[in-house]
Amino acid sequence: MEPAFFEIRGGITAPSGFRAAAVRCGIKEGALEKRDLGLIISDFPAVAAATFTSNKIKAAPVRVSAAHLRAGDTRAIIANSGNANACTGSTGIQNARRMTQAVARQLGLKERQILVCSTGRIGRDLPIEKIEQFMPALVAGLSSSGSDVVAKAIMTSDTFQKEIAVELPLADKRVRIGGIAKGAGMINPDMATMLCFITTDAPISKRELQRLTSASVEQSFNCITVDGDMSTNDTAICLANGQAGIPPIEPDREEYSRFAEGLNFVTRQLARMIVEDGEGATKFVEVHVKGAATYQDARKAAEAVANSVLVKCSWYGEDPNWGRIMDAVGYSTAKVREEMVDIFFNGAVAVEHGMASSTPAETLKEVLGNKKFTVTIDLHLGSAEYKVFTSDLTPEYVRFNMGE
Amino acid sequence: MEPAFFEIRGGITAPSGFRAAAVRCGIKEGALEKRDLGLIISDFPAVAAATFTSNKIKAAPVRVSAAHLRAGDTRAIIANSGNANACTGSTGIQNARRMTQAVARQLGLKERQILVCSTGRIGRDLPIEKIEQFMPALVAGLSSSGSDVVAKAIMTSDTFQKEIAVELPLADKRVRIGGIAKGAGMINPDMATMLCFITTDAPISKRELQRLTSASVEQSFNCITVDGDMSTNDTAICLANGQAGIPPIEPDREEYSRFAEGLNFVTRQLARMIVEDGEGATKFVEVHVKGAATYQDARKAAEAVANSVLVKCSWYGEDPNWGRIMDAVGYSTAKVREEMVDIFFNGAVAVEHGMASSTPAETLKEVLGNKKFTVTIDLHLGSAEYKVFTSDLTPEYVRFNMGE
Repeated sequence: MEPAFFEIRGGITAPSGFRAAAVRCGIKEGALEKRDLGLIISDFPAVAAATFTSNKIKAAPVRVSAAHLRAGDTRAIIANSGNANACTGSTGIQNARRMTQAVARQLGLKERQILVCSTGRIGRDLPIEKIEQFMPALVAGLSSSGSDVVAKAIMTSDTFQKEIAVELPLADKRVRIGGIAKGAGMINPDMATMLCFITTDAPISKRELQRLTSASVEQSFNCITVDGDMSTNDTAICLANGQAGIPPIEPDREEYSRFAEGLNFVTRQLARMIVEDGEGATKFVEVHVKGAATYQDARKAAEAVANSVLVKCSWYGEDPNWGRIMDAVGYSTAKVREEMVDIFFNGAVAVEHGMASSTPAETLKEVLGNKKFTVTIDLHLGSAEYKVFTSDLTPEYVRFNMGE
Repeated sequence: MEPAFFEIRGGITAPSGFRAAAVRCGIKEGALEKRDLGLIISDFPAVAAATFTSNKIKAAPVRVSAAHLRAGDTRAIIANSGNANACTGSTGIQNARRMTQAVARQLGLKERQILVCSTGRIGRDLPIEKIEQFMPALVAGLSSSGSDVVAKAIMTSDTFQKEIAVELPLADKRVRIGGIAKGAGMINPDMATMLCFITTDAPISKRELQRLTSASVEQSFNCITVDGDMSTNDTAICLANGQAGIPPIEPDREEYSRFAEGLNFVTRQLARMIVEDGEGATKFVEVHVKGAATYQDARKAAEAVANSVLVKCSWYGEDPNWGRIMDAVGYSTAKVREEMVDIFFNGAVAVEHGMASSTPAETLKEVLGNKKFTVTIDLHLGSAEYKVFTSDLTPEYVRFNMGE
């Protein structure tokens, strides 16, 4: 049996009909070598789906993109790093629109066919003239191998670029899905300081693409947390241009679930990369709550543990301090009966019936010595479960975030 | 006009008819010089009021004290540090009861007249024999100047003891209120790893004492946060023995509000001391949200800001990064309109109408250079307000909490 999909190179320019480019236009002051403006285009008509931050303070590009998303044919995404264009009032909205106008003018498209994203410091006006000035060079640089430079251009505190692509054998043809993302701090469920751009040459309706994108974000970017903060700018966008040459992917076809599987793999891998790149992080931890009475209970308990500053400090210290985990589960508002709770560090049981197990402390400590481990919390109250991927909290995180 | 009250020395043994003592019985291993068991008694019949942690995982002493609180005459509080007696199952309950039994036996009282508290590491059985063995010595040491040693005996990661007393001229006599507290980490609204014991010689019914104690805790310990974690053991207890010799303090009398004022001062001062002693903290910050549509909105916004890891890191770095404050207000779920928000660091306006003010960055930075400052967030949507007292997040906090 052939595999459902396999990884390929090429990121967002792996799917047919997409090109990308990036330049350094000088938004990131002082960083002479760093690109800070990226562009992704589809050379063919495309449909777009997106999810945005649920923060009530939304950056200007989020507002503009949400409006432009109503267009039936979306052709490009323009994104800058170094400035969030958030808390910038009507000037910010104008500047976000000017970014889309500059792209539209250069490419002969309409403003509403362009989506826009920004990431960086909040509360400063965007140097829009620099962006406009570099637009011709940006468009001139568009290339079908340009994924890599855009992945770099959207990085802020990221230490490595986040890029992936998969190929799915579907209906005797090859469908490709590519993705890039940025994010390393201010990461929390509901899309915190995270940008993700996905391209695919699958033929799919805007409605179905939105449904699959929302579901895919829910099981990936909304399941990660670094510091519990949720940003003003988070955006995940998926563009589909149908160039793979297969019949439309519709819910009643086998291709639909296989495409969803590929998309979920892409978003989940990018989400993992974000946690692995968590600012100052030394541990990658999966918090798995099972046996919860409800899905919401499982989620609340998992998120309370994953966001507990004290729990994260103990992971950094490789201290199997399960008392702090019990404490976090207890204040999570999830239904919990103390005497039913079991907690495992990987396969080693730390808590049985709400009390210390007989597992030697050294055995538990050994698990926490790993770079990656899983904390499983079984509430024994039902069958609902939830997984969160997170990191530890380190002195380096604090130092990293103490100033600009 | 005479002052409503004034501070005096003597802590919990300042009010008439109270004695206290502490010993080192060896719960804190290795800490040869440190007392770890304290006792507070009223030599006369007394009524008790208390508030406990809202964590669903409650330590054994919390459960036992909540049951014993139903007694009409409460005479003593026994408290240990070094072991939380939490997540210890039925053995834990037995041990908490044995602590109260040991006191009762030694003093000729009933078990239910004794309240019990523990603080320290979760998940280890209490060395109950040590506690029982030292009970005669503890009782023999009871003294009307014993407040100081009990304040020390309940310390865990605290770096200084927290003690206060006030005297109120009431009905031509002197009413006294004394208090001690512990807590330096795992501090969050709803009483997190915090013990507070208050004594008063005021004559007051159990019902009214509970009402005033609950209200007083709400405006003090429930308004502080260090790390957003909420413990399994938090307890605030108030004992009133009526020895001041004035008529009962009842709601329709002027003495009632004056007594409440004194009690609120005591709890608020102790709460401030806890934040000032926050683990690794270098800043004491008041977060004041005003102009909120509702009290709950004001509270949610203030708590989101005070618990934001990113905001706390920027305070440590003395970086007036108001974008992170806007971000936290935005995800707090409080009603907010971006263009209405003003933010001040002390008297300096940082944000006007949701955007950067013209205040020079150096002016804002200067405010954050202070050890104490106030962040005022005016939502301009109503008249509700809320204040939270909190600290910064430092590399020292992480190092402090990375292991035992």
